[in-house]
Order: sequence, then C-alpha cells, then structure tokens
Amino acid sequence: MPAAHPISPEALLARVETIFTKAGVRPESARAVAAVIAAGERDNCKSHGIYRVEGCLRVIAAGKVAPDAVPRIHDAGTSVIEVDAGGGFSNPAFDAARPLLAERARAQGIAALVIRDCLHFSALWHDVEALAQDGLASLSMCPSYASVAPAGGSAPLLGTNPFAFGWPRQGAQPYVFDFATSVVARGEIELHRRAGKPIPEGWAVDSAGRPTTDPEAALSGAMLPFGGHKGSAISTMVELLSGAMLGEFMSKEAVEFMGGTTSLLPRHGALVIALDPQRFAARSGRDPIAEGERLLTAIGAQGARLPSERRFAARAKALADGITLSEAELAQLDRFETMGLAALEG
Amino acid sequence: MPAAHPISPEALLARVETIFTKAGVRPESARAVAAVIAAGERDNCKSHGIYRVEGCLRVIAAGKVAPDAVPRIHDAGTSVIEVDAGGGFSNPAFDAARPLLAERARAQGIAALVIRDCLHFSALWHDVEALAQDGLASLSMCPSYASVAPAGGSAPLLGTNPFAFGWPRQGAQPYVFDFATSVVARGEIELHRRAGKPIPEGWAVDSAGRPTTDPEAALSGAMLPFGGHKGSAISTMVELLSGAMLGEFMSKEAVEFMGGTTSLLPRHGALVIALDPQRFAARSGRDPIAEGERLLTAIGAQGARLPSERRFAARAKALADGITLSEAELAQLDRFETMGLAALEG
Repeated sequence: MPAAHPISPEALLARVETIFTKAGVRPESARAVAAVIAAGERDNCKSHGIYRVEGCLRVIAAGKVAPDAVPRIHDAGTSVIEVDAGGGFSNPAFDAARPLLAERARAQGIAALVIRDCLHFSALWHDVEALAQDGLASLSMCPSYASVAPAGGSAPLLGTNPFAFGWPRQGAQPYVFDFATSVVARGEIELHRRAGKPIPEGWAVDSAGRPTTDPEAALSGAMLPFGGHKGSAISTMVELLSGAMLGEFMSKEAVEFMGGTTSLLPRHGALVIALDPQRFAARSGRDPIAEGERLLTAIGAQGARLPSERRFAARAKALADGITLSEAELAQLDRFETMGLAALEG
Repeated sequence: MPAAHPISPEALLARVETIFTKAGVRPESARAVAAVIAAGERDNCKSHGIYRVEGCLRVIAAGKVAPDAVPRIHDAGTSVIEVDAGGGFSNPAFDAARPLLAERARAQGIAALVIRDCLHFSALWHDVEALAQDGLASLSMCPSYASVAPAGGSAPLLGTNPFAFGWPRQGAQPYVFDFATSVVARGEIELHRRAGKPIPEGWAVDSAGRPTTDPEAALSGAMLPFGGHKGSAISTMVELLSGAMLGEFMSKEAVEFMGGTTSLLPRHGALVIALDPQRFAARSGRDPIAEGERLLTAIGAQGARLPSERRFAARAKALADGITLSEAELAQLDRFETMGLAALEG
C-alpha cells in the first residue's frame, strides 16, 4: 500500500544518513553510503535502494565492516592511484579518491583507481556517472560472491561480477551501462522460488552441474554467465583484473571471508579506469563527444533503448514528484531510525 | 584435397611475406602482416589465416591502403601513446609501438596505445598475446563495418566490433579471449547461404528489422549483438572508445570511406590498454599471477574450457607437424607469388 505523501530524494537521503550515523558509521561515510542508496531508490533501482539498508546494518552488526574506517589515499604520482577503504564501505573510499583520479586522467589521458579492502554493495553506475560528470569515460568492475559457474562448468566459482561503463554527453544524461555478467541477478531466482515458478532454461545448473529450471535446485547449484562462453570470458576477466591483479579477494575468497555465507554483503576490492576523451582525440581534430552523439542519436532513431534510459526517466519523475514508498518501507525506516541495530533482532 | 607435404609455420610466413613484398608493401610491413596471417593459419584460425591474403591484395589494388606507409609514433610522455599508421596496415604500427607501450605500462601501471588511420583486418589476440609475453594484461578493441543492429534496433549501425583480453600466465599459454560482439561472424551467415541452410533464430534481422532465419534476408538486413542488450551495450562501448574517443572512424564511416562496400577490409583506428599486474598488486603483498592461476586452474578443474585452448592445441600441433594446406590453397599461394596483384584479375 503506497503512503499518502511522497518523500523527496534529499529527505530520503537525510533519513538514511541518520540511520547509518546512529549505527556508528562515521559521518562522511554515512553520507556517502546514504547517497548511493537514496540514488538507487530515486532511480527506481529497487535492488540498490533502501532495501540495502538492512543488509548494511547486518554487516555492521556482524562486525564484518569497519564503520569508522577512514579511507587512505596512496599516490605514487603514477597513473595508478590507490585508496585503502580499511575494511569500510567502498563508497566513501571512491568519493575520497575521485578528484585525484579525475585530475590524473586529465593529465595522463588514462588513469586507474584501485579500491582496496572494502565492503562493496552498491551499483557501479553511481561511480561511472560521477566520472561522466567530470567529463571522463570510465570502466568499473569488481568481483562479488562465488555463485556463477564458468560456461561449461558445474559449480560456483565466479561472482555475478558487475561490469560498468560511462561516457559523457552534452545536454543529456551520460551513456551508462552497468550489468551483472550472470544471466540474471541472484534475487531473480529467489523471487521465482518464492512465487513457486520455474526459472527459464539457461539461467542455472543444479549442484551436479545439470541444467535446471527448478529455482531451489538453482540456488543450491550455480547461476550461469550471460551470453554463453563470451559472457563467461568477460566474468573471468573481471575476476582477474579486479581480484587477482589487485591482490584483493576473488569471489571465492569473498565467500570464505564471510564464513561461507552469502547472507552478508561481500568484501573485496574494485577497479575503476578513467579515460579523458579530449586527450585521446586531441590530435585527430575531431570532437569525441560530438562523434559519440552521432552514434547514440542513431541508436535512438532506430527505436532502440539506450541502457539506463528507464533509470533516468524514473529519476526525472522522482525529482519532480518525490519518491513514493510503501507503508512497510516507511515503517522499516522508522524502526531503524529509532532503534538502530537493535531493530535487526526482530 | 590435402597436399602431400605439410609446410612449417616459418616457411609459410616467408611465402606470405614474399607475396606482400612483391605487391609493393614495404619489407617491415610485409613481415608484420605475414606474421599475423601465418599465425592465424598455424592456430587453425582459418578466418584469419591465408584466406586473408587475397583480401589484403584487393585493398592494395583498390588503392585503399598505403603499402609503403611508415608508422610514426607520437609520445608526449603521458600514459597515452599514439602511432599513426598513415593509412597502412595496423600490424606494423602495433609492432612499432609495442616496446614503448610496454615500457610506459610498467612505469605508470597503466598505459594506452592509440593506433590511427589503419587498415585493420587481423585478429586482436595477436596483440594481447604479445603483451602477455611482456608480462602485461591488456584489453584491445576496434570498430569494423556497420553490419550489426543495436538490440531493439533494425538496421546496421555497429560493427562486429571485436573485444579482446590477455592475461599472462607462468609456464602456460596466456589467458586470452578475442571475440566479435555480434552473435556470429558475418562469414557464418554467408556459409549458411551457400549451403542453402536457414540460420538459427536470434542471429539477424531482415531489412525491415524483423527476426529472420533466411541467410539471404539476414545479409541484406543486420546481424544482432551477442547476449542481447548486454552485448549490444559492449559493442556500443567499443564504438565509443575506439571510434569516437580516438577521433577515428566509427563502423558506419568505415563503410562510407570504402565507397559503401564491405567487400574490402575496413579502415579505422584501434585502442589497446596495457596494465602491469605487478604494479597493481605491489602494495597487497600477493603475487597477481599466482592468484590468477588459482582461478584459471579451478575453471579447468570443472572441465570447462578456457578461451583459446583449441587455438593453442592447434599451434602445438602445427609447430610439431607443420601446417597442412589444401591443393587449392597452395595453388593460390603459387599464383600470388608469381603473378602478384595481376592474379586478382582472374
């Protein structure tokens, strides 16, 4: 049942921020985490919206995230910048390093940001969108929890390993994609299980590695990568570049670190690569953003949707009309706001 | 009919090199182009093997490639290095810039190579494998010819836009993938047409944008990206990063430059990003290559195939036993070797 009065994105951000501050999260981090959660809700990205508040609180309660961690930047002056999240949330670490990453990308043409040792639960589009606002193209990726079998394999090894890309546009929202390299998110299978509905073929294998349409069997088996062996290759690349290469957890280790459970949010590193189109195009004499527009306009002219279009439409609506939460969602926010971590015990 | 005597990879390289030298290609470029063609044949990658010789000669005959172009490197000392192919083949340009790219990636952690204004016909695995030999991870991508509709679209706009990744391994061939972001290569549809067989659903749309299983209708329509909207997003990223961002042709312009025909090879730019795992991992205290091995070994232990495995097996066989060409293939090499470009007129 929807509530009578919608809430503005800023008001929602303030409420979520209060919840995290009361749970012992340092103010700058509470603000950063609340910002991505409120943005998810604003963009009608429910799976990254206030639904995530409880998960974050549970990890705090379990002692698996350092709520007071202060991100520390390590800059050797090269094109690779590092930020140690110190076991804290990834978001304040990214925010702290973003200006230096943008500066270095403009100076060098290309630069990378390594985020170390962070609790990572947020969508990657938030980061690549921020860099697009800085006029930069970017790639972002991270491992997650081992829940996906490689194509041709039979057991969880890869994570849902998101892969995101952002490209700046003039006078329009940036071109942004951000997707799991599994066929679907794990939550989709869970929804089918609750509804007692079979899952489509090609989503998962059972614990013996056989194709299955039974959501129960899929959840105790493994999900499959999107796009067959090509998607599997991209997922493996994500493990190598944002796990092995950084010397941070891969998806299998992330599960082990959390004591074998995937009910808490994963801890690992992340990789962001930023590129300055103006630097890359300079010698050509062409305007890279205008060139990009020719392509993106032509895609739209075919009636094809650009990724994130629905999200941007939801955002425009939320900014104009506010966000409508259900009574249950509002009641949960109230409970967290007044009771803090104690509300988890109910 | 197979020939009685197999030919060694080196002997094949020498023959192809002679063909290009006689066709007016400068010696260094003839060697570079012959090397990738002989490597394709050696790896039983027939679509990038000696089959390509005729295509290269046709572009020379059409005056759409500069056979005597000398690659010129532009280095401003940043993490982006450029090489102007000067309208020549991409391969000598990559070879010329590779040492500087590797040096810069080691010094900066990450570096990019822009290849400008080149005729590009070769598989990308050749470049990422070379960088893996240098101990570097790398990404490589380029546009091609507009022949693929965006997901949800109806007309050719994107190219088959290959995307490749390489990762060094110790005591093993590198982890390498290199694939078209279309469901299949255009040649696959052509083979179905010649055989009078329908193509599977999901490969292509007809000229009105309707799904089709008729290869003829598909060839006059558009191919589709792999993996639905996710593959389409990656293909769009390839156009933006290796077309628009470099100020070089996108796939649509590549067709226009060749006078609207796709019977010649495409001319455009290419982007290679090189990353030094040792630099990225240094502060973690972990060995990134050893970490990568844990993942790659685990994939193999599930009975799943790594990309390029078949190619490496074919290579081992060719290096041991030589390459067996058909009589027709050998006859064509003879013809090109003795008659040069005049052989095309037959």
